Amino acid sequence: MPRLVQKFGGSSVKDAEHILRVAKIVADTAREGKELVVVVSAMGDTTDELIKLAAEISDNPDRREMDMLLATGEQISIALLTLALQKFGLKARSFTGPQAGILTDETHSFARIKTVHTTRLEASLRRGEIAVVAGFQGMTRTSEVTTLGRGGSDTTAVALAAALKAECCDIYTDVDGVYTTDPRSCEAARRLHAVSYEEMLELAFSGAQVLNARSVELAMKNRVPIRLRSTFKPTDTGTLVTSREFTPNYKICGLACDVDNVSFKLIIGEDFSTEKNESKHQERLKKLIDDLHSSGVDGLDSNAKNTSELSNLEFLCQKRISQDIQSLLKEFVSELPGSEFFQDNEIAKLSLVGSGIGTDIALASEFQSILNGASIPTRFVTTSDISISAIIPQSYRNSALNKLHQKFCAQNLEQPLEATK
Amino acid sequence: MPRLVQKFGGSSVKDAEHILRVAKIVADTAREGKELVVVVSAMGDTTDELIKLAAEISDNPDRREMDMLLATGEQISIALLTLALQKFGLKARSFTGPQAGILTDETHSFARIKTVHTTRLEASLRRGEIAVVAGFQGMTRTSEVTTLGRGGSDTTAVALAAALKAECCDIYTDVDGVYTTDPRSCEAARRLHAVSYEEMLELAFSGAQVLNARSVELAMKNRVPIRLRSTFKPTDTGTLVTSREFTPNYKICGLACDVDNVSFKLIIGEDFSTEKNESKHQERLKKLIDDLHSSGVDGLDSNAKNTSELSNLEFLCQKRISQDIQSLLKEFVSELPGSEFFQDNEIAKLSLVGSGIGTDIALASEFQSILNGASIPTRFVTTSDISISAIIPQSYRNSALNKLHQKFCAQNLEQPLEATK
Repeated sequence: MPRLVQKFGGSSVKDAEHILRVAKIVADTAREGKELVVVVSAMGDTTDELIKLAAEISDNPDRREMDMLLATGEQISIALLTLALQKFGLKARSFTGPQAGILTDETHSFARIKTVHTTRLEASLRRGEIAVVAGFQGMTRTSEVTTLGRGGSDTTAVALAAALKAECCDIYTDVDGVYTTDPRSCEAARRLHAVSYEEMLELAFSGAQVLNARSVELAMKNRVPIRLRSTFKPTDTGTLVTSREFTPNYKICGLACDVDNVSFKLIIGEDFSTEKNESKHQERLKKLIDDLHSSGVDGLDSNAKNTSELSNLEFLCQKRISQDIQSLLKEFVSELPGSEFFQDNEIAKLSLVGSGIGTDIALASEFQSILNGASIPTRFVTTSDISISAIIPQSYRNSALNKLHQKFCAQNLEQPLEATK
Repeated sequence: MPRLVQKFGGSSVKDAEHILRVAKIVADTAREGKELVVVVSAMGDTTDELIKLAAEISDNPDRREMDMLLATGEQISIALLTLALQKFGLKARSFTGPQAGILTDETHSFARIKTVHTTRLEASLRRGEIAVVAGFQGMTRTSEVTTLGRGGSDTTAVALAAALKAECCDIYTDVDGVYTTDPRSCEAARRLHAVSYEEMLELAFSGAQVLNARSVELAMKNRVPIRLRSTFKPTDTGTLVTSREFTPNYKICGLACDVDNVSFKLIIGEDFSTEKNESKHQERLKKLIDDLHSSGVDGLDSNAKNTSELSNLEFLCQKRISQDIQSLLKEFVSELPGSEFFQDNEIAKLSLVGSGIGTDIALASEFQSILNGASIPTRFVTTSDISISAIIPQSYRNSALNKLHQKFCAQNLEQPLEATK
């Protein structure tokens, strides 16, 4: 019997009515004669509410205890969805992440799945049950509850699809597929019929929030096809994410926008070059650069080793580490008179994604000139095999997206795109 | 180091503020130099809210899935209380029932603890941690989550105290001990300094809701002293429940009232004695009596074997099985013309509890005459070694309680009672 993993996100199971709607989709699929494993997230805002509750008690909560707390959200969903499936006359059984055999490393809050022991799930499927599994959670070797980080339920679904050799992993959410760009910012955005793992990964890394990057990597590694579909249009097949040989060969597949970055500029004080302090200051600067690199900043000039020639440093980082970076810079500035640093939170990173486009010099120059032509200031313009990116002020986000989309995504694509229904 | 189990009920951990208050009590005890295991219930109305949520989905929910659902309530509490203890600078770690090694039988929703594997808890205590354990839940041999029924967290606490050889099990709740009778119904009610397991058990069975009867049985069997205390008066030592040799030898220790009963009266139709149908009807009546006995009804005359002499049956049952009893009687009545049955939900069972009082005929007659003197109708008057009980209409509840309390509990007790503070 063909085997399928279905995953439903928090907005799809936000209350009893939504859970019954999801149960209907699952029941219809089961009646088509599929073996089904269903992965669910916590209901609606449950996770955020639990985080808020913990914040009322501690402003620096232990990660192990946060995992213990947050894992309850998905456990509530699996029990309720199973009750709904049973109400529809189907055999179903719920499994927590640990019960489903999802073994992870010990990194609480950001655990990685190491392996899946499928014995219990296989037995459940053999009994003709629909196995309903809690997403986002697993267990360490020593039976500690772990969680996989935001978007972790996608990873659970793909890992189960791989371990159970399912034919496909259907990820249901509140959007109906992958678009050329965010339809909320650009009316002309069009849905893609299919994309390759590589393109999807680049889109995810570049800020497209539709699929968690780790789950795409896992799907690529295990050759698990993902279908991204809408819970609210269950007959629509959405976007297929699969191997390149099965997807259209897009010149440009999409335009992603990431507002999760912060830029920093450090001005290195005059004092630096006085002979007396030079060596000490160079030591400090070298240490700062090392610390920045190991903190995971982006765009820091890799030639910045010759510290004596530097008058300033510019780089980007993700919002979640910006406090740490601020502390490093504050310390440096306090020890070197004349130094100062500037931070900009109001930036957006635009990325044009497509196989091989980074090596197309004409295209990169066209990308730049469109932004220039619209008087949109750009910084940190970079290219990779599969993307061209630039940082712009957030206030220009929508106008830049629309202009670039019109030029690169709306027409003249090498392969025709399916029109949005 | 002396070892103690503390248990906090749902009203003691109903929000972040209350959890921090509980953490303060635990922290103060830990700093006195005790090894501590802390058992908590679900926050406030969490369990009822989860039951309501399940009812929105299914009107006959599967018990296994209900256990999966309800177990989340205590899991939230343990994580939050552990965070609160860590905030106060203490080492603490949370354990679900399964992680704490609480093994139960397979009876979902009403599971019984079979054994406790203390390895993980012992290791935690050895590391100097406060072990925070989810009450009300356990795990079967096959790693299925089970719950222990209402009041199950008390049972968890006593079972852990027994398995870990704790010196005492402190059960914190919103009342400050065991009273001679319910203080909400009788202003003269006085708190008891100590009671024996036997007396407490009889009070619990007779409707005193202060402690779960199963937990008292377990404490008695394992000789675990219980202290019943108030979260809101942490310096008050409450009521000690322990072996008879350590408690005052009360003539009468208390007066309990149970409103969880329903009474039934079945009139057996005339038709019964016609020769033709006699044998068939006798068969039916015998079967009914057997069914009633095995359903767990109370007060059914045990001489009722000679069915041919019966013209009616009167008995009691607990509310939770009254629907089943109704169905049995409806079926019987429908098959025997002239039969009918009456049901009374508005009854209360009053029980005077004290060691050996049931054999004191003068006392039993005084009990009856006080109720008669106040024109309170009584039925099902029964005695046991340790109690005298009567069923009265619920509308007379408070006046009966006050009259009986004044006579038997307020003065002339063989041992002086500690006055309520």
